[in-house]
Amino acid sequence: MIYFDNSATTKPYKEVLESFWKVSEDFFGNPSSLHGIGGKTERLLSQARAQIAGLLGVDAEEITFTSGGTESNNLAIKGTAFGYKNRGRHLITTAVEHASVRESMHQLEKHGFSVTFVPVDKEGRVNPEDIRKSITDETILVSVMHVNNEVGTIQPIMEIGEIVRAYPKVLFHVDGVQGAGKLPLDLKKAGVDMYSFSAHKFHGLKGSGGLYVKKGIKLEPVLSGGSQESGRRGGTENPAGAVAMAKALRISLDKRADKYPVLLEIRKSLVEGLGNMAGIIVNTPNGGAAPHIINFSVPGIKSETFVHALEEQGIYLSTTSACSSKKKSASSTLIAMNVPDDVAGSAVRISLSYENTLGEAIEVLKEIEKTVSRLGRVLN
Amino acid sequence: MIYFDNSATTKPYKEVLESFWKVSEDFFGNPSSLHGIGGKTERLLSQARAQIAGLLGVDAEEITFTSGGTESNNLAIKGTAFGYKNRGRHLITTAVEHASVRESMHQLEKHGFSVTFVPVDKEGRVNPEDIRKSITDETILVSVMHVNNEVGTIQPIMEIGEIVRAYPKVLFHVDGVQGAGKLPLDLKKAGVDMYSFSAHKFHGLKGSGGLYVKKGIKLEPVLSGGSQESGRRGGTENPAGAVAMAKALRISLDKRADKYPVLLEIRKSLVEGLGNMAGIIVNTPNGGAAPHIINFSVPGIKSETFVHALEEQGIYLSTTSACSSKKKSASSTLIAMNVPDDVAGSAVRISLSYENTLGEAIEVLKEIEKTVSRLGRVLN
Ligand SMILES: Cc1ncc(COP(=O)(O)O)c(C=O)c1O
Ligand SMILES: Cc1ncc(COP(=O)(O)O)c(C=O)c1O
Repeated sequence: MIYFDNSATTKPYKEVLESFWKVSEDFFGNPSSLHGIGGKTERLLSQARAQIAGLLGVDAEEITFTSGGTESNNLAIKGTAFGYKNRGRHLITTAVEHASVRESMHQLEKHGFSVTFVPVDKEGRVNPEDIRKSITDETILVSVMHVNNEVGTIQPIMEIGEIVRAYPKVLFHVDGVQGAGKLPLDLKKAGVDMYSFSAHKFHGLKGSGGLYVKKGIKLEPVLSGGSQESGRRGGTENPAGAVAMAKALRISLDKRADKYPVLLEIRKSLVEGLGNMAGIIVNTPNGGAAPHIINFSVPGIKSETFVHALEEQGIYLSTTSACSSKKKSASSTLIAMNVPDDVAGSAVRISLSYENTLGEAIEVLKEIEKTVSRLGRVLN
Repeated sequence: MIYFDNSATTKPYKEVLESFWKVSEDFFGNPSSLHGIGGKTERLLSQARAQIAGLLGVDAEEITFTSGGTESNNLAIKGTAFGYKNRGRHLITTAVEHASVRESMHQLEKHGFSVTFVPVDKEGRVNPEDIRKSITDETILVSVMHVNNEVGTIQPIMEIGEIVRAYPKVLFHVDGVQGAGKLPLDLKKAGVDMYSFSAHKFHGLKGSGGLYVKKGIKLEPVLSGGSQESGRRGGTENPAGAVAMAKALRISLDKRADKYPVLLEIRKSLVEGLGNMAGIIVNTPNGGAAPHIINFSVPGIKSETFVHALEEQGIYLSTTSACSSKKKSASSTLIAMNVPDDVAGSAVRISLSYENTLGEAIEVLKEIEKTVSRLGRVLN
């Protein structure tokens, strides 16, 4: 079994599960309870918060725990919109964001906000100047993802941060779900005001995520309720999930030191191998892309057909993003990149983690080649 | 150690943790992924959904998984408000709801909705006729909790359901967080359109909850994103949490058969014991209250002081609800019940689960009596 679908989700590390178990059993109290059983859970939650903050280079009070990347993105976007609507009602994002950003924006349009979806170039990259040109007196938020989940393109966060910084009324949100644990990003230097992450994308557990919110920013809660998470998010906290997420992030960053070069090597061999195969188009740009996502197309063979054929060989990869794969709609990123329909309709995504090996990549290349030729014969 | 704070949160059952671990490890795929690793996780998630639906007497497709009770309440209330705002912009609730309901309502007021907070009687109970009288042409939702989390009063859900049924434009939401697993409620018979529950209140895990949404109801998502949960809630699902929740609910309902009479016995001994103690006022009504919550006051001794004093004897109970206990504000339910300030300011909540015993209750009564007399001497 070769699992090459790590951008959909990753297998949790054993240590992560162990932490989750231990906290759930020995620290089961409600962190908001006044007594000691609550208190010791609250201290653990604070430690997890401080640890994650340390790993991201921010302050503990700037971390809000959420149920995942989707909630983080919703909180950043709707929280800003409703929290700052008196400043203006215009938001800016790109044409290649994850559904949780896109749909939050569409919902806000129904609430009287206007949204500019800035286009991308043929590599899926937004031009920072296009962001600048979109900013008006009404603009309150710019939301741009760090790493695109469908093709792996890295967005020019530093440059966009530089631009946004010149507009004190405008906040800058980065969906870091595909970047966290993989690509370094100095949130303070980049002028990022909010940054979303999700544990299950870096070998943590589903149902836990977080949002960095720079001190001083007042978001309107999306989940109204008690005064947990400094009033940003009601609901009994999930300390076991938070501790497990802190552990997953720490382990991922530890591994990065050793494994990043390996990931680059795997990526290189995949991109070269795929590039040399007849009938395959690599959609991921060569430069300025994350090391763990490679998107390619086999025009003439539908994405689903290809994914299923490889699965028969014990190889797991995906069509586009998991959350839209059931809808069988073509990748919105590829469409925004203006690729031909048959390229979009036959796109396949490989996504790696530090647990994958070069040997697996070589095996996968071999099977892809066989599959292309076999399916090509059958279908043509 | 005697843990009598089960309405704040419960200790997860071992079997629940085992299920969580197994699913996280062996079924780590993204349920939305097209391939088999996703598919087998999706099937497990469907089984958990069907199991919970079966236990609640509803259909599987009527269960939406959420991150907890707070999210369920937010989804029910804001989802209805924004989903049905063309029908009208008036909502009805009671003066004694949990913060997640109350604050959702307050947020909606800022969005141009009007909300009627129906008062309660001195037992904390709403009069169904008051609900009826509040309904106008503009009303789209009635939201009433099943069991009050601060004093345990059971609300007349059947009667309110009967009333709301006569207004086809009005939906009926019940916050069942404190009732689920403890008090039977036939959702279909009671005419309930939406019902919130939260796993960690019945020995499941924090971070998992659910909302029953009757077929045909179209809620506007609170967490926008992918098409998970039939488009009601974006975000990668948490199958391990869902399976663990299904298990916790099943075990709780199994235990109920045996342990409910025990719970009633414990409750009786506590209520009688407290009632006989000089200087103690029992705030929980004698009839029409849940078996697991007993609220009492020791006028003259502040809630926090009392909770801390009992903690020194290894007994854990709480001031009001956990989520407001840190704010040190008096119980909003007691205030709505119109109790004198010194009663509200000295209220203490005992909350039980099927794991508690009569022996514990007798021990707790003894310590309460000692503590009242000791603190009374010190303070007076
Ligand atoms: C770029 C991006 N943003 C947000 C999300 C949403 O994260 P989650 O599934 O944890 O809600 C995902 C993953 O699906 C993603 O790839
Ligand atoms: C009546 C009631 N509703 C809702 C909630 C919120 O549930 P959760 O803490 O799982 O968000 C609680 C518990 O805190 C509650 O007691």
